[in-house]
Amino acid sequence: MPTLILCRHGQSEWNKKNLFTGWADVELSEQGYDEARTSGKKLLDQGIEIDVAYTSLLTRAIETTYLLLKYSHQLWIPVYKHWRLNERHYGGLQGKNKDEAREEYGEEQVHIWRRSFDTKPPEAQESLREEYLNDRRYAMLDRRIMPVSESLKDTMERVIPFWIDHVSISLLNNQTTLVSAHGNSLRALIKYLEDVPDDEISQLEIKTGAPLVYELDNDLNVINKYYL
Amino acid sequence: MPTLILCRHGQSEWNKKNLFTGWADVELSEQGYDEARTSGKKLLDQGIEIDVAYTSLLTRAIETTYLLLKYSHQLWIPVYKHWRLNERHYGGLQGKNKDEAREEYGEEQVHIWRRSFDTKPPEAQESLREEYLNDRRYAMLDRRIMPVSESLKDTMERVIPFWIDHVSISLLNNQTTLVSAHGNSLRALIKYLEDVPDDEISQLEIKTGAPLVYELDNDLNVINKYYL
Repeated sequence: MPTLILCRHGQSEWNKKNLFTGWADVELSEQGYDEARTSGKKLLDQGIEIDVAYTSLLTRAIETTYLLLKYSHQLWIPVYKHWRLNERHYGGLQGKNKDEAREEYGEEQVHIWRRSFDTKPPEAQESLREEYLNDRRYAMLDRRIMPVSESLKDTMERVIPFWIDHVSISLLNNQTTLVSAHGNSLRALIKYLEDVPDDEISQLEIKTGAPLVYELDNDLNVINKYYL
Repeated sequence: MPTLILCRHGQSEWNKKNLFTGWADVELSEQGYDEARTSGKKLLDQGIEIDVAYTSLLTRAIETTYLLLKYSHQLWIPVYKHWRLNERHYGGLQGKNKDEAREEYGEEQVHIWRRSFDTKPPEAQESLREEYLNDRRYAMLDRRIMPVSESLKDTMERVIPFWIDHVSISLLNNQTTLVSAHGNSLRALIKYLEDVPDDEISQLEIKTGAPLVYELDNDLNVINKYYL
């Protein structure tokens, strides 16, 4: 039976400061590093053998992947990094404190941006757009595709092609597959996997740095899921 | 002009203890971690932008790659891991102290095993062969290919196809390419690159954890080389 392991990155410096992060490339906090190390040791203790890992282009997810593999003694497995697993692009909200955003835009509006399935946040400022257009890591990304802000729906629309073309193929080949990514890119995956309704998916909370194991049948239907 | 960066892993626990290592999967020593971090910072300071990295299936080389990229703020670049970049397989000598080996086999014999181009060391014990045959990381390696001991010539014969099929293609695409590997797998590459005679290559010493930059022309001839 194919096994899928999802892991949201450990706590980041901006999670800790309660800032909207999105594509901002922030580091894990000390707690975040600890979460990932602890989870790596759990993988080892439980004898979970990963065959392949997918992660985003953002440092906090790559670091989490590395620590999961290091502490489970399987650093040698292939790791593929792709922008489609990046966090939801939070547009003009990136870098803002969540409480300050509530003061600026109102509680209700911020709630909608965070919890609606298909409402986009304000678009990124010109300077932020320029920053990503000039970032070497996105040099291979079609200029017209570069997001300026994303709803969860937008995020899902770019995550699912990656699932179909890469992750699901590994699983159909019966490989134990790790996807180490972000709160919203994983929500998008889980919505697809479990067919969660639009108005329920944003309530789903995913623990940071904690591997969430999905046992699947051969058609990749969910049989069982649990945190390690 | 294509740029190739070779890096031998930082000092390992077994380098420190003066043991023959080969395919034994030992960790970096504290000094080894420091060497790799320092070199990562040098890459950052000198603005060296890597496009792609290749490393072996051995933890000490993967850790070195990770630290080079982490401290140069380019963890997001693709890293490919392959057994062909593994250290020379030291057969029955693996795990032996070099001084003890000299007592057991004689100074001259050990010198030949270490410094001859085409003399194989004694074959690995049955238990070691079994260990690698059962190691998940080599599960995709044709059973008939699994080495039992290698001369530097043998190592070269399996490294060069990887150069031709992967590393050289990246360079011909003008990508700044990192190969983070081992004393002997890098010697093999350098022998090919610089056409070093058989009886001279084993004298070539490569510093641990220190990036060795090769500036190449468009036909991949060496124009210049220097340690960072």
